[in-house]
Amino acid sequence: MAQIEEQLSNKQVLATDYITGNPKQTDMYLKTSTISLQLPLDSSEAVLVKNLVLSCDPYMRGTKRTDRNNLFYSFSPDSPIVGYGVCKVLDSKHPDFKKGDLVWGVTKWEEYSIIKTDSLIKIEHTDVPLSYYTGLLGMPGMTAYAGFYEVGVPKKGDYVFISSAFGAVGQLVGQLAKLMGCYVVGSAGSKYKVDILKNQFGFDEAFNYKEEQDLDATLKKYFPEGIDIYFDNVGGDMLEAALINMRRRGRIVVAGMISQYELDEPQGIKNLLNIVYKQIKVDAFTVYDYYHLYPKFLDTILPYVREGKITYVEDIAKGIESGPDALVAMFTGKSSGKQVVLVANE
Amino acid sequence: MAQIEEQLSNKQVLATDYITGNPKQTDMYLKTSTISLQLPLDSSEAVLVKNLVLSCDPYMRGTKRTDRNNLFYSFSPDSPIVGYGVCKVLDSKHPDFKKGDLVWGVTKWEEYSIIKTDSLIKIEHTDVPLSYYTGLLGMPGMTAYAGFYEVGVPKKGDYVFISSAFGAVGQLVGQLAKLMGCYVVGSAGSKYKVDILKNQFGFDEAFNYKEEQDLDATLKKYFPEGIDIYFDNVGGDMLEAALINMRRRGRIVVAGMISQYELDEPQGIKNLLNIVYKQIKVDAFTVYDYYHLYPKFLDTILPYVREGKITYVEDIAKGIESGPDALVAMFTGKSSGKQVVLVANE
Repeated sequence: MAQIEEQLSNKQVLATDYITGNPKQTDMYLKTSTISLQLPLDSSEAVLVKNLVLSCDPYMRGTKRTDRNNLFYSFSPDSPIVGYGVCKVLDSKHPDFKKGDLVWGVTKWEEYSIIKTDSLIKIEHTDVPLSYYTGLLGMPGMTAYAGFYEVGVPKKGDYVFISSAFGAVGQLVGQLAKLMGCYVVGSAGSKYKVDILKNQFGFDEAFNYKEEQDLDATLKKYFPEGIDIYFDNVGGDMLEAALINMRRRGRIVVAGMISQYELDEPQGIKNLLNIVYKQIKVDAFTVYDYYHLYPKFLDTILPYVREGKITYVEDIAKGIESGPDALVAMFTGKSSGKQVVLVANE
Repeated sequence: MAQIEEQLSNKQVLATDYITGNPKQTDMYLKTSTISLQLPLDSSEAVLVKNLVLSCDPYMRGTKRTDRNNLFYSFSPDSPIVGYGVCKVLDSKHPDFKKGDLVWGVTKWEEYSIIKTDSLIKIEHTDVPLSYYTGLLGMPGMTAYAGFYEVGVPKKGDYVFISSAFGAVGQLVGQLAKLMGCYVVGSAGSKYKVDILKNQFGFDEAFNYKEEQDLDATLKKYFPEGIDIYFDNVGGDMLEAALINMRRRGRIVVAGMISQYELDEPQGIKNLLNIVYKQIKVDAFTVYDYYHLYPKFLDTILPYVREGKITYVEDIAKGIESGPDALVAMFTGKSSGKQVVLVANE
């Protein structure tokens, strides 16, 4: 005798198609479907979750097909946007996850999802905002932690420059660098962001790159002794200027090159010869190589968060309907903090 | 009562001045001085040597003043050219070196020199050509060894590309890569060099870059699966083409960028975004960080040399008078092997 399944209404944000470049509002549409509150019987590796928080991140864009094998795709035709989120498990046949567990990992932009468990990490500490598990305590936080400590190999007194310093990754890199006793300067794209970098995150200096005419001169002003670690989120002109200002044996930690993704023709980057003259290392690491450090990362960061020594600024859009605008805001630099979408309270 | 000092005639190659860029014959002149066969009484850290072999290396060029703090200078007005060499100790007050010792390290372009001991390494194995201690068994060899093993982190089956593969460093990198079971392709600037790469050093393939119109297409032809390790001696267009053809998690080992040194304006290098997409590491290491591995290096290389599994091609100019021509030949790609100047037999 068939069991009567409870069906729930399920609001979704779907992609119209694959995309090229940064997403626009017209690449997404809202739809309301239904979903069963029970997992199908054959779904041993999946869980049914209620999505609580969805994350807007810079990798959620289209790339040329030839590059696709290296990224996972957030946009597929008439499918929910794919991205990181915080979820509550409603049904599970996987032994590691049970009903009521809070998890973070790769989910879909809808109220309820059936998702694979391979990316999911159980949330053990709930005395901090759950949304932090999409940012400060999630993939961007791990990117900051692994990039700064493992790739940048910092030491006390190092001169550290961070571009896109107000981003989900940059915020934490700067605060970790200050806690280590480094001199820290960040660039960002508005006065609001620059003020927070200096006054809330304790950066030594920060500047609005849109107001600078000569980035080489700007960096020389803030780094008369040169740069030991450049944490690069933008590439392009800023990388070109940073190369001139690197110190001997400097490290360029490449987390992204957001200035380059939208160009029709790749930009030629000058000053690479500095790499040879100064024995510089450039490392475009991937955070996925460092997830084994996640417990150590939490042990490091959580006490700082609880003591107020690390803070994090979020821009919280409310309701799944706000998802498309929130994602576009993140890509156009309009978010006033790490951009998340609050779908539901626990 | 003053000792009677024996004075020797001392032929020298002197620089006319500091230089900018690659040296020309007119930047050097010959002179004959005299030198005492005994060290001054106060020279506890120096030794008097007879120079046997002098080395011509790509770093022996002028750089812009702002870069000078990172290199040592081969050219100073009316001073002997400074470079690596193999020498025999004639007089020493240093406890580590005694009369008759053979050493290699930084010396001067003249028949006899008083030199500092801090760069000198005693030569223990004399069953191989002494000139090898300026190349295969000296600084270039250590550069190849450290760059390939320590920076490149190779494994069997890796796809390895070496530019300037016939150079003092490239010759050894390719042979080490073959011995490890890699697929190895090298570029060089003449048919003569390409033939030696393939027929004597056992490269899988080699090409004359001067005959290629489209380096991207050339690399695609030789590396249909892409490149794991690019050992870069040239930078510029070749680096740009290699970036497109790198595999995921590839390593670019930067030993030099000889195509860039003579440019008035730095060349913009496109395709750096591949660093992000493919999580590439670019490392412009310095061999000076790896000299602690020199004994291990000799233990690895010497047996191969004795068994004939590693060979090395030298271009030996005879007599110190041939120094200026030899140095210029090295810079213009005309040397038919690692360029050395034989000043004297032992």
